[in-house]
Amino acid sequence: MVSYEADKPRDECGIFGIFSHHDSAAHAALGLHSLQHRGQEATGIVTHDGRQFHAHRGLGQVGENFGSQDVIDSLRGTSAIGHVRYSTSGETILRNVQPLFADLAFGGFTVAHNGNLTNGYSLRQELVNQGCIFHTTMDTEVIIHLVATSSQKTVIDRMVEALYQCVGAYSLIAMTEDLLIGVRDPLGVRPLVLGILDGAYVLASETCALDIIGASYMRDIEPGEMAVISSSGVKSINPFAPEKSRFCIFEYIYFARPDSAINGIGVYNARKRIGAELAREAPVEADVVVPVPDSGVPAAIGFASESKIAFELGIIRNHYVGRTFIEPSQQIRHLGVRLKHSANRSELKGKRVILVDDSIVRGTTSTKIVEMVRDAGASQVHMRIASPPTEYSCFYGVDTPHRDELLAANLDLEQMKRAIGVDSLAYISMDGLYRAMTGHNRSSTEPQYCDACFSGDYPIELADNDSGNLPAQLSLLAEQR
Amino acid sequence: MVSYEADKPRDECGIFGIFSHHDSAAHAALGLHSLQHRGQEATGIVTHDGRQFHAHRGLGQVGENFGSQDVIDSLRGTSAIGHVRYSTSGETILRNVQPLFADLAFGGFTVAHNGNLTNGYSLRQELVNQGCIFHTTMDTEVIIHLVATSSQKTVIDRMVEALYQCVGAYSLIAMTEDLLIGVRDPLGVRPLVLGILDGAYVLASETCALDIIGASYMRDIEPGEMAVISSSGVKSINPFAPEKSRFCIFEYIYFARPDSAINGIGVYNARKRIGAELAREAPVEADVVVPVPDSGVPAAIGFASESKIAFELGIIRNHYVGRTFIEPSQQIRHLGVRLKHSANRSELKGKRVILVDDSIVRGTTSTKIVEMVRDAGASQVHMRIASPPTEYSCFYGVDTPHRDELLAANLDLEQMKRAIGVDSLAYISMDGLYRAMTGHNRSSTEPQYCDACFSGDYPIELADNDSGNLPAQLSLLAEQR
Amino acid sequence: MVSYEADKPRDECGIFGIFSHHDSAAHAALGLHSLQHRGQEATGIVTHDGRQFHAHRGLGQVGENFGSQDVIDSLRGTSAIGHVRYSTSGETILRNVQPLFADLAFGGFTVAHNGNLTNGYSLRQELVNQGCIFHTTMDTEVIIHLVATSSQKTVIDRMVEALYQCVGAYSLIAMTEDLLIGVRDPLGVRPLVLGILDGAYVLASETCALDIIGASYMRDIEPGEMAVISSSGVKSINPFAPEKSRFCIFEYIYFARPDSAINGIGVYNARKRIGAELAREAPVEADVVVPVPDSGVPAAIGFASESKIAFELGIIRNHYVGRTFIEPSQQIRHLGVRLKHSANRSELKGKRVILVDDSIVRGTTSTKIVEMVRDAGASQVHMRIASPPTEYSCFYGVDTPHRDELLAANLDLEQMKRAIGVDSLAYISMDGLYRAMTGHNRSSTEPQYCDACFSGDYPIELADNDSGNLPAQLSLLAEQR
Amino acid sequence: MVSYEADKPRDECGIFGIFSHHDSAAHAALGLHSLQHRGQEATGIVTHDGRQFHAHRGLGQVGENFGSQDVIDSLRGTSAIGHVRYSTSGETILRNVQPLFADLAFGGFTVAHNGNLTNGYSLRQELVNQGCIFHTTMDTEVIIHLVATSSQKTVIDRMVEALYQCVGAYSLIAMTEDLLIGVRDPLGVRPLVLGILDGAYVLASETCALDIIGASYMRDIEPGEMAVISSSGVKSINPFAPEKSRFCIFEYIYFARPDSAINGIGVYNARKRIGAELAREAPVEADVVVPVPDSGVPAAIGFASESKIAFELGIIRNHYVGRTFIEPSQQIRHLGVRLKHSANRSELKGKRVILVDDSIVRGTTSTKIVEMVRDAGASQVHMRIASPPTEYSCFYGVDTPHRDELLAANLDLEQMKRAIGVDSLAYISMDGLYRAMTGHNRSSTEPQYCDACFSGDYPIELADNDSGNLPAQLSLLAEQR
Repeated sequence: MVSYEADKPRDECGIFGIFSHHDSAAHAALGLHSLQHRGQEATGIVTHDGRQFHAHRGLGQVGENFGSQDVIDSLRGTSAIGHVRYSTSGETILRNVQPLFADLAFGGFTVAHNGNLTNGYSLRQELVNQGCIFHTTMDTEVIIHLVATSSQKTVIDRMVEALYQCVGAYSLIAMTEDLLIGVRDPLGVRPLVLGILDGAYVLASETCALDIIGASYMRDIEPGEMAVISSSGVKSINPFAPEKSRFCIFEYIYFARPDSAINGIGVYNARKRIGAELAREAPVEADVVVPVPDSGVPAAIGFASESKIAFELGIIRNHYVGRTFIEPSQQIRHLGVRLKHSANRSELKGKRVILVDDSIVRGTTSTKIVEMVRDAGASQVHMRIASPPTEYSCFYGVDTPHRDELLAANLDLEQMKRAIGVDSLAYISMDGLYRAMTGHNRSSTEPQYCDACFSGDYPIELADNDSGNLPAQLSLLAEQR
Repeated sequence: MVSYEADKPRDECGIFGIFSHHDSAAHAALGLHSLQHRGQEATGIVTHDGRQFHAHRGLGQVGENFGSQDVIDSLRGTSAIGHVRYSTSGETILRNVQPLFADLAFGGFTVAHNGNLTNGYSLRQELVNQGCIFHTTMDTEVIIHLVATSSQKTVIDRMVEALYQCVGAYSLIAMTEDLLIGVRDPLGVRPLVLGILDGAYVLASETCALDIIGASYMRDIEPGEMAVISSSGVKSINPFAPEKSRFCIFEYIYFARPDSAINGIGVYNARKRIGAELAREAPVEADVVVPVPDSGVPAAIGFASESKIAFELGIIRNHYVGRTFIEPSQQIRHLGVRLKHSANRSELKGKRVILVDDSIVRGTTSTKIVEMVRDAGASQVHMRIASPPTEYSCFYGVDTPHRDELLAANLDLEQMKRAIGVDSLAYISMDGLYRAMTGHNRSSTEPQYCDACFSGDYPIELADNDSGNLPAQLSLLAEQR
Repeated sequence: MVSYEADKPRDECGIFGIFSHHDSAAHAALGLHSLQHRGQEATGIVTHDGRQFHAHRGLGQVGENFGSQDVIDSLRGTSAIGHVRYSTSGETILRNVQPLFADLAFGGFTVAHNGNLTNGYSLRQELVNQGCIFHTTMDTEVIIHLVATSSQKTVIDRMVEALYQCVGAYSLIAMTEDLLIGVRDPLGVRPLVLGILDGAYVLASETCALDIIGASYMRDIEPGEMAVISSSGVKSINPFAPEKSRFCIFEYIYFARPDSAINGIGVYNARKRIGAELAREAPVEADVVVPVPDSGVPAAIGFASESKIAFELGIIRNHYVGRTFIEPSQQIRHLGVRLKHSANRSELKGKRVILVDDSIVRGTTSTKIVEMVRDAGASQVHMRIASPPTEYSCFYGVDTPHRDELLAANLDLEQMKRAIGVDSLAYISMDGLYRAMTGHNRSSTEPQYCDACFSGDYPIELADNDSGNLPAQLSLLAEQR
Repeated sequence: MVSYEADKPRDECGIFGIFSHHDSAAHAALGLHSLQHRGQEATGIVTHDGRQFHAHRGLGQVGENFGSQDVIDSLRGTSAIGHVRYSTSGETILRNVQPLFADLAFGGFTVAHNGNLTNGYSLRQELVNQGCIFHTTMDTEVIIHLVATSSQKTVIDRMVEALYQCVGAYSLIAMTEDLLIGVRDPLGVRPLVLGILDGAYVLASETCALDIIGASYMRDIEPGEMAVISSSGVKSINPFAPEKSRFCIFEYIYFARPDSAINGIGVYNARKRIGAELAREAPVEADVVVPVPDSGVPAAIGFASESKIAFELGIIRNHYVGRTFIEPSQQIRHLGVRLKHSANRSELKGKRVILVDDSIVRGTTSTKIVEMVRDAGASQVHMRIASPPTEYSCFYGVDTPHRDELLAANLDLEQMKRAIGVDSLAYISMDGLYRAMTGHNRSSTEPQYCDACFSGDYPIELADNDSGNLPAQLSLLAEQR
């Protein structure tokens, strides 16, 4: 597979839930479709029809799995939860596709999860020793077993007891026969919003999932909040000790869709402001500002507007690169990036070009893009990055390479400049990023966001990782389907 | 689907295991292929390579799932167990395909099961109340949870503790990291044999699975025996109080392959003897003895030989009826049976025909076969059945219709004769059947076989059934894949 | 693929046509299903609805392609022709699937063909030189181009002109907007019968295709006859000079279905008579007569009946060997034949066995069968073959190996006996075969049948072959789909 | 399927050829991939290896069909031609996929075609009457039959004779055993360029296909030129009387890729100039210029730059809408457009918005886009279209609706404004368009381009259309595969 995004961090999940709507499965499918950028490898929906749960899951995208009326019709009921995923923990085999479902003593229970439990492996080992049988390698199943074996009576008490034992970053949507429950971890690292459509409550990772179904945005679920939706409305429970929010700043930089708003801040606008700040911090004389499509576009517009240099689509993205194209020959491998992007030769020839991108991870694609731009005749190429250098891995639900593979963890700025082959290279500063987002510098005592991938300041304990006993594989079973 | 066998009882499973052979997965695939008549809806193999378990499962036949070298190569290891199945309990969705596997506290554990637990549902309810999460609707999973939650130390002690709680008919093959274990229920209702190939022990439902891989038959596993195969050989454990064998007599009549031998008795030969006894009990003047192919052939040969009436293939079976042929039109539905069978017109025209079949369940196919034979010009049609009337449902791992649908449970002989449209109809008597099998009449005090489907004499308690609390469906989840 | 039939000659085609029946496509599908033994690699149906032709073709069996009501419904119209095929001439790619269709100057024209033109390649070269464009590698297309470029007016005159130029063995069914036409070559080498159903005329390769749809057999189409079916009934044209019939005797021996009758002679009965004659010609003292299933069964019944030796199913055929099973491992390749057949050990052990088969081509399978029977404990194995030695290739529409690969063309009887590993080997004599079929020895001046595969006496000129300019490949195009 | 592009004209084809390059098939696949915007329904490649032609064709995109190394390896040889297509003439069944191939008297001949013969149907009828058999419904096959039946000797003379008979707009690439031939129709309506890679000549519809493989652009093939590429180089033949070029202006407006250059004019730059001219012709006070993505982006950048109004991505395109998504429910059908586009709410709320699009065909999508923008809170919506009103159908190889469905053919500007629901609506004028392209107004005597879709001035005779005898369907055969 040839994928430019192969050199981006990958968010692992998007989640969606809707309660008491006559057309729940269709709306869940639409909502998940709008969250497709958060995970394209697998998807699932579970509904409840008052008597029975119905599930459909599959590898691939939402449209491939929920595009037929037959499938939607089979997902009967007025409540639904759904999930799209990449595969940070757990290989992508069919039974690792969420939402997970279990018949528990109190009835059916199903969960969709975005994030990562940093003590998931230790919890799993304890549960297996008690006689629990795991069927997936996902830490979502840890939560279900904790709920199943809880000594509490009600499902809410069981969930609270279960989550007390969990350490990590998570946004969850759970569904029982009569409840829809949304939870964010105490620091609120991953997003979750509440909306309403025709009187039916909706939970979703991002506001774009509300927009697509025509729902109104009500509010973001608070860090540490458990929102319990039932036929009598929404009830908020705050089982954890209050803590200051540390929302993932990379959601603003790259993960979230530009048309979403998080905590009231429009993502597209945030990116433009970051681009403008970058133009102030790292100006350079040039003829054109060219975004690396598509994620670099808003920052490039901001940069161009602030610098008064013309914004041009100097790189064209090919929309027809599906997931199946394999580079057709060894001899032409170096042409790979051109399957997905092409240089707009007449706009680049003889020009001094400022390339704007949101981030650099391994640097592999950046190098090829720059080479392509030079081949098209650019006289100078200046790279501007709308985030600080990515030096640390994420353990909170984002798939980043090991530090060994992160360009900025291994080279200094001058070395990176040469590696990528540009005339100049600049990243926005950490304080510049915070100013663009909040108007203030980063608070070193109470940072306003989680920025561990830039700073190495991990706000949640990395329990399994620090104990060093993470296994190569969670299950003894290597399964083919 | 058009299937003549639709009107036969259906055995639900065949099982196979091999220990310490360099080519275990390939031999398991071959063994299962020879047991394909015991289940065609799904199949699976689990192997162990000394470190890790490998599994491959799929819907459909053995050749469809294990026909490629890639799949066989991926099933690394020197031990393997496998399964073919119909679907008595549990709908056929992929995760209901055996062998089941679980990571337990002591390591990996995998089980393949032929039979039915008559208290499976009650056990399941107790386990769910303890916090166990079920992922299938099969009672095989009940056994695994009993082993997982057992307070015993060794896997053997855990299995014994688990099986003490189980009531039912079962032959099991289990595999751990260093053991292969074969068990038959205390009455030995379902078959299981032990063989040896190049020093490697083999367990299988029938001897035909030994023949195909070139293994030597050693002996049948005893009723109530647990045979534990390890690197130090076979060790027999007899955890249950001794009881007299009640092997399923229908295995001889229909289920087992004609080239298998059970307890030293060749199945083909048993069927011929039954046919000969039937000829003595219910003679009739006629021109030809015609088997209903293919299951009626051995009994027809026995009948023809005893009666000195010519044996002829008056009905030809079409070998090209796959599972995909749908009757192509409403108007020609009555021709359905002809997709699978055709009358050999020149051998039937003007003849007095004795049709020999092994059993009648609903009678639907018999009626159509007789009509086809008459259409071809037979002057008389006499039906002879090589088993007593099937009046009762089986609860021991065989898929029979409810009594309401059993022809012999609802009509007397004369009514059946008219319903099927024959000039005469006779079944072998119960004592005749036993004489053909054993040389003696049926012992009313200690019957030599389980014949509950004919007699209603159920040798194992029907716990769930008698308690009347069997649910319409075991799981709250209706899943699509 | 493991296929026992791999060592049989393969007929290349079955054809079917029906005129003016409201349910034509469904009946064509049924008829083709009953002709499936004549070709399993591809199938097609073309219908005409009074205005337009409709076609559906596909690789694989009839049920796989015509099993859904949707497909049948799409084949609108009251006339239909259909085809099943092996691939003697022309690789099996989709566009080589018959019936072929063409829009000609007079309207649509579609043809299904069983046989082989022995001057097909020369005709093709001439046509290409005239500017004709071929889209298949089948000689059926030669016929269509001859009709298309004919200077005659009516389609009948065009067909007659076309067939005058063709040399070979063929049975054709053609369809135009208002006609259904059946033709046999002047010697009538390949079969074609006429039947009637509800007043609608039916053409088919064998009577079993009439039986399955409930049609009445009327008569065999005569050698050299062109039967033109229109709304005014059947009109016979005999464009060729009268010749004596030379019907393919191998159709009786192996190709035709046992329940078919050809020229009024039941195929099953013919095979029994051949078996009986063989028992008279080549008797041997033994305990059991065992057929090689399934094709050897009728001859074995005849042999057993004549010899008074017990007929037993000593070899069991496994019905679950689909087309997908690949021998799962190199090490166990010699077990290959056991995927399809198994020895009925208890019926063979210690017995003197007469194995009866219809023919031997390469001898590969026979060798393995004999080895399997010996492994099962047979004390003696005597092979009896219900046809003369197959020493010559067929050029009349049957796929036989080159002479180099025919066992009987390369070894004498004693050598064959040793090669196959039997205690004795006997073939029926040529005269014995003719006596069983006709009551008379073979007429050396006017042989009653085509027996070229035994005698080398080819009744139709082998034009392309004798000219020696047959190309390795007919088309310059190697196509993938 | 939900497709925004459903409301755009659709170009029907892209073509590619390469001569004497060791890696011809891989380069053809890459070249076609870059031409994917010209046709996504089917694709094919034919190669020649000095002895034999190799073909692979399939429905779907290039990556789906040519993404595997196996397929590329099977396409042996140093010359290749390829094709991507929509389906203007001829339904999309597999055998309508180009390049077409035929074995002709002089050897193999294969053709890929972009355009439409306006007398194709009349030619076809004549050819059928001469005995030619057509296998597709494409006029490309007409050309092949004209070549096949030509009385000329050489393939070049045959092609010239054939093209003399053809009327229409076409760019062709043909390949024989030793030649690669590119032809444009006398007016040069459709594009074709010549390039060179490592000494190997390349022909392609657009320069972007040269860029992706790293080939250098040499020149555009001239209107009426036949470029014959052989081992001795390129030889130009001009068989037609000289005429003034009438290249399709819509290629600049919408069809061609923005990074291509046609006749030396960069497409992206042309679109920006058109946008700027539009801003001059139809200014309006507003807060933001928002392109309808993606085709409206360059014109919007030009409009924003000229008008000094901020360019913003107010509409976000969802990249994950594959071809399989079906709107999941009746109730939410009006949300359809949101599967593909979403409003960037925070950039639109309270703003006066100028929407820039390249063209309006039926107007269906425009209406929904405007509604979505208003729902997001825009205070005013002004639509600016970077082409004159589309009032006439194209008959030169572009799939446009019948005039009855063209918005601008049925409504005046005021009516369109109301229908689409905008506050103001303006199209660029015809002269404005020509000025942006050439610096001059349109010449009424010798127009510089073909603009028939705007002007109704058809420069090539519409022979079949004017004769009125175009059939509803070309073939009598309705085929399923």
